[in-house]
Formats: sequence, C-alpha cells, structure tokens
Amino acid sequence: MSIPGGRRVIWTDVAPRDGLQSWPGGPVPTGVKVRLIEGLLAAGAPRVEAVAMVSPRAVPLMADAPLVLEALGPGPLPRLRALIPNPRGLERALERGITEVLVTVGATDAFNRRNVNRDVERSLAELGGIVTGAHAAGCRVDVALSVVFGCPYEGRVDPGRVAALCARIAEMGADEVGVADTIGVATPAQVRDLLARVMAVVPADRLSCHFHDTRGLGVANVLTAFHAGVGRFDGSAGGIGGCPFAPRSTGNVCSEDSLLALAAEGAEVGVDLAAYCEVSRRLAADLGVDALPGRLHRAGIWDPAQP
Amino acid sequence: MSIPGGRRVIWTDVAPRDGLQSWPGGPVPTGVKVRLIEGLLAAGAPRVEAVAMVSPRAVPLMADAPLVLEALGPGPLPRLRALIPNPRGLERALERGITEVLVTVGATDAFNRRNVNRDVERSLAELGGIVTGAHAAGCRVDVALSVVFGCPYEGRVDPGRVAALCARIAEMGADEVGVADTIGVATPAQVRDLLARVMAVVPADRLSCHFHDTRGLGVANVLTAFHAGVGRFDGSAGGIGGCPFAPRSTGNVCSEDSLLALAAEGAEVGVDLAAYCEVSRRLAADLGVDALPGRLHRAGIWDPAQP
Repeated sequence: MSIPGGRRVIWTDVAPRDGLQSWPGGPVPTGVKVRLIEGLLAAGAPRVEAVAMVSPRAVPLMADAPLVLEALGPGPLPRLRALIPNPRGLERALERGITEVLVTVGATDAFNRRNVNRDVERSLAELGGIVTGAHAAGCRVDVALSVVFGCPYEGRVDPGRVAALCARIAEMGADEVGVADTIGVATPAQVRDLLARVMAVVPADRLSCHFHDTRGLGVANVLTAFHAGVGRFDGSAGGIGGCPFAPRSTGNVCSEDSLLALAAEGAEVGVDLAAYCEVSRRLAADLGVDALPGRLHRAGIWDPAQP
Repeated sequence: MSIPGGRRVIWTDVAPRDGLQSWPGGPVPTGVKVRLIEGLLAAGAPRVEAVAMVSPRAVPLMADAPLVLEALGPGPLPRLRALIPNPRGLERALERGITEVLVTVGATDAFNRRNVNRDVERSLAELGGIVTGAHAAGCRVDVALSVVFGCPYEGRVDPGRVAALCARIAEMGADEVGVADTIGVATPAQVRDLLARVMAVVPADRLSCHFHDTRGLGVANVLTAFHAGVGRFDGSAGGIGGCPFAPRSTGNVCSEDSLLALAAEGAEVGVDLAAYCEVSRRLAADLGVDALPGRLHRAGIWDPAQP
C-alpha cells in the first residue's frame, strides 16, 4: 500500500447542525451551539456546518439558526456552512452572511420523497437555480448525495447510478460533490468500489465523503477514502448525532478520532487535536452526559514523552 | 492495495475474561459469565477467553473461575482459553480440563514489574517451564506481549525490542505469539511498521494481534493487520472492557464490529454475526446497561433485501 504523505485534508465538522439536529434530549440552548461553533473554529476545524436554514416548523431543533448566526457576529462568515433545503433557504442564508451552503439530494427516489416530498429529478432541476443564485452572490455550493451505499427504503443502491448522479451534480457546478453513507452501511471494499467510479467523473479536489459509524466502520472508511485520494470529509465532534433508522445507534463518524487517524497516516489536518477533544468534552458537559460516542475525547491524546 | 480473499481468521473473544475483569459495576454473577461464554460458542466464536486462573485475592472479580468452568461441563474444554499468571495457574487450568492457556508478558520492565512484580527477563525464564509443562499435558500455550506500542510508564516502546522479544517467545515454543496494544495508542502506520518487523521472526500462522479501541482506531488497526497478513485476533463482544490507564475509556476492540469489517474484506470469519450481536445485547441487558461500547449490536446487521 502506498502511503500518501502530507496531503491536506479539509474536514467539515457537522456537529452543530447534523449532530445536534437529532439530539434526543430536545432543543439545545443557543448558547451551547454558539460555544460549540466557536470552539471548533478555535481548534482549527477547517469548516463548520453551523446551522440549517429550514422552516422552524419542519425542524424545530434548528429554529434558532438566525440567533446562532447573529451571535457569531456580522457576516461574511467564512469557514461556516449552512444546510439549505431550497431556494428560500438560500435567500435566508445569504441574508445572514453565509458564504457556503450545503444542499442534500437523496440517491433514491424513495428517500428523496420522504425527505423533501419530490423525486430526485425534481430536486436536481431545482438545484441548477440554487447553484446559479449562490454563485451570483459569491457563495459556494456543496451538494451531498444521501444514502449512496444503502437506502432504508430501497436497499442496496447501484454504484453506477450514484456515479451518474455525481457526474450531473459536478456538471451543474457544485463546488463540492459529496457522497454520504446516511445510514452507516458502507464497508471499506464498497468505499473503494464506489470511489473508483465516482472519481472517474468528479475531480478529486471537489469530492467529499460523509461517513457514519453506525456499525463501527466509520474511521476505517475514512482512511480507505483517504488512501483512495479523497481529501474532504464530514464528521462530528465527539461523534455526536444518531441514526433515525436505528434507534440508540451512533451516527456521524467522530471528527477527532478520524483526524487522529488521518494525521497518523500522514495527512495535514490543520487542527489542534487536544483543543478539539476539549470542545467535545465541554459539549458533553453542556448536554449533561458523561461522554459522547467518540473515543479520543475520553482517553485524551497520548503523549509518549509524558505517558 | 491487494485484497486477500477467503483467508480464515481465528478470532478469540476475550469478553468473559479481559472484558468483564474491569467491569465497574463490580462482580458479575457467575451465571451471566456462563451464558456469555455459551452464547459466544454458539455464535461460532472460534475461541473464547473464558477465565483467569489467578489468585482470588489478586483479582476478586475472577474468583469464580472454577465455578464457571464447572458449569461449562466436564473437560476437556476445546475452544476455551484461560489466562494464567504462573505455573501454579497452569496446574489449576489443567485440573479443570483447559486445553489452551494464555500467558502475558510486558514488553517493558516497568509494566511487567507493576503487573507481576518482576522484570521481563525473569518472566521469560519462567515461561520456558510453563511451555514445557503445558505441552507435556497436551495444552496449547499462547503468549501475549503487552504494551507493545506504548507503555503507561516508559512511553513509546522500541519496535526492535518488541520484535526481538517476539522472536525469543516463538523460539521457546509458544503456539501463538501475540502483540497487544494494551493502552490503545497504536495507529495503522505503526501497526504496519511493527508487523513488518515481527513477521520477519514469527510465522504468520502463529502471530496474533490484540487491539484496543481507546482512541477510535481499533477496527482500522484490525483491518491494517489483516491486510499485512495476520489471521489471529482478540476482541470482546460489544467492545466491553475498559482501560485502567484512561478512566471512562473503551478498551478491547469490539468483536462483532471487527468481524463485520473483516468479512466485508473477504475474510472467512466463521461466525453468525446476527447471533453474535444478540449475545452482546443480552450481555448489556444482564449488566443493566442500555448498550455496550460497540456499534453493530445496537444497529443490527443491515439486510439490503429487507432494509
């Protein structure tokens, strides 16, 4: 195996949005979210998915998005990303100084319909307008394709279909094309297979991977994708976030565990891992739990000089 | 990367011994241990580390070892392994029908002294007698070298020293030579480096790896070792077990999460993963906790045909 050394990794921490969106303890105080985002930025997280600009009726736990952004200071807000569901969400995000948005599209019609009540083609048709509108305003647009390894309604997803959708999204001008293992069923072999197909149609520097640790393979999948040439990843501080399709299960792969693994493989991750762990420990305390699902924030960085 | 296909993996589940030895809830009822061992055997675990034949004064939580073995029926007891600390432990194990024992030796003098109150050379000197005595009785002897990637007292451990110790242990006739990341500090790069040295002096079919998931890299390290040619591993059902050097941290890598990953990489693991998950869920219930640290037993095996 060849070991790429010194390759830069752009990690997006999705804890404030994707991680807390399903927090079973109910709404998280705005102050906790703001402190989390500020802590992640201070620890060097290249990007932070801070909020979702969605209808408060659809996702009540994200209703304080305007307050969160207001607390983070006047825009423009570099290094922050906002999830938007539609053109109206883009407007809301631009008004608040957001400079990078994320749109998700299901890889299957069944998933997309349950999520946004339309088939994949209709979502893609709308996507063109979002990309044009965002770019006209100087805003980056990341597009993530959900359930690419498996769908809770349709089962296994054809990698050829995923690659074809990725190609179309790249052609539409998305700045980043992401493939997301939304329900956490990918294995390293499947990651290698899918990436070989997707990397034939999406430039490596625009490709991103979003893994979940639902079945314990999250970090292994991150390393597999890194060795395949991927340099952009999502994950959450402390591995916070669940899986709506598997109660009590873990969701997003843990950022700091993954970043430790990537750094050990020679990647330039650009974060202060000790500070990152402190952010996760503080988040756990703020949420009133002993520890989050991730591992490193509990054990701490090991220093051979001071074992 | 070359992907070996169909290679047999011999997994030893150490949950009943290593996993429960440090259970913070105190002594685990003998019946729970017996049910766990029987469940693991029924799920197809190739081997189960069932008990430690140690002084009840030294390890009170293992004081019921004779009762556990009695409940498992008259010997000989194939597929079960017992940890023994010394020749007296071997006698106790042989009396109970045990056909495979494990002896651990620290890779550093400081660790070995804290553990068994003697330096590594004195442990190795005693090991010769144990191997001879066990083999004369038709009993296999596995020897695991602890803290090979890092020692809580001496820091980083020289891989050359580890390889030299492994060579001596192999020459002494140990049936299996194990390298153990006792405090969970190994990274895939270090695993590759150490194994390259150890595999030059220990035949691959006698080499075993024992990883901890203390910092989230457990499954990734298992896969790295597998791709390096290792076919024998330790781990625990549900990832049960802690790390005495990092309170609240996870210890042993989770068996079923690792076995899923290995099977997906083409290994023949020989277990019923769904039954394995059920064993972990039952253990969690028996211990009165919602879930164990591992992931797969919470989410369950994903069936693409019945998503």
